[in-house]
Amino acid sequence: MIEYNRDAHDIYRQSFAIIRAEANLARIPDDLEKVAVRVVHACGMPEVVEDLLFSEGAGAAGRAALQAGAPILCDSRMVSEGITRARMPADNPIICTLQDPRVPELARELGNTRTAAALELWRPHLEGAVVVVGNAPTALFRLFEMLDAGAPRPALILGFPVGFIGAAESKEALAADSRGVPYIALRGRRGGSAMAVAAVNALGSEHE
Amino acid sequence: MIEYNRDAHDIYRQSFAIIRAEANLARIPDDLEKVAVRVVHACGMPEVVEDLLFSEGAGAAGRAALQAGAPILCDSRMVSEGITRARMPADNPIICTLQDPRVPELARELGNTRTAAALELWRPHLEGAVVVVGNAPTALFRLFEMLDAGAPRPALILGFPVGFIGAAESKEALAADSRGVPYIALRGRRGGSAMAVAAVNALGSEHE
Repeated sequence: MIEYNRDAHDIYRQSFAIIRAEANLARIPDDLEKVAVRVVHACGMPEVVEDLLFSEGAGAAGRAALQAGAPILCDSRMVSEGITRARMPADNPIICTLQDPRVPELARELGNTRTAAALELWRPHLEGAVVVVGNAPTALFRLFEMLDAGAPRPALILGFPVGFIGAAESKEALAADSRGVPYIALRGRRGGSAMAVAAVNALGSEHE
Repeated sequence: MIEYNRDAHDIYRQSFAIIRAEANLARIPDDLEKVAVRVVHACGMPEVVEDLLFSEGAGAAGRAALQAGAPILCDSRMVSEGITRARMPADNPIICTLQDPRVPELARELGNTRTAAALELWRPHLEGAVVVVGNAPTALFRLFEMLDAGAPRPALILGFPVGFIGAAESKEALAADSRGVPYIALRGRRGGSAMAVAAVNALGSEHE
């Protein structure tokens, strides 16, 4: 018999206790504490808390939007599939347009990546939405371009693109000028769909 | 006009060049070089290469299995949805049983997590399969129990569970005794669906 913890609730409880013991949450506002803890839980690295970027009230803005039924616009299928439907407070629509058959042609027209081009199909849903970028820096850059050109404003931007080309830059740009939109992001190269999903799941429900 | 790289191919090319410049790949065997690079690409951290655990020939074993049509058994939907179908060489079945309606009852019967219980439904597909654990340590521990009790042997185990309770221990246990199954894993708390998916995508195709 292999010895290991088989109790999902106890695993969560102990995990969150370890995170709260190890992570430096002192500068994290109350409305983001559970977001920070879940982001750490998703990556196994308590030190990422030090790289969390956020605007004041971003957590409250995200929660209010979700409770009001805001759609959740995701840059990748891993994000849209990772969000726990049962944690969302208003049966919120979870939308990823990346596989839409119009996207390859849109990407050619725009001279941009497919992920960036997929944002064109977000336009009818963008007003008051929760935007989740868990993969591609180009999605975040393209969102800035759309907002600068007058696109409707989302309620919250979760900026967790990952990688070596543009990820750090796109999140610095978000923190420098979020176009008036509340945001939560992770500074630097780190990020990814699991951390982005964790942030959404934390905002969707207080339950741990 | 915001300055950023909009060319997906060039972003990949530059990203992989940066990874190969920064990561210490000296101890990584040839058949795992592209796996290591893609795992780094998925997380933004070149230093994870130092935590890669593997058995000799694991990369070759995984490639051969996929080319022979092996099913890919995934512990979570983020993993099964993240795998790029077009990169798989033999239209390989990609299976995640976690949402099967029988799983909650199986979990009660086994006194284990739903993720671990979902492995019961892998049994008909397990022989020669590529097993991908990108989330739950209990899935890896449960797999050991099934193999010890005589379950059919997969061709490869990709061990990337993440977190604070059991993740590091489950991967140490895999490296200490993989029950004769080739394996690739990431030591410690780090891991997750994105890295697990990256390993599968690297084994499925040589194309970068």
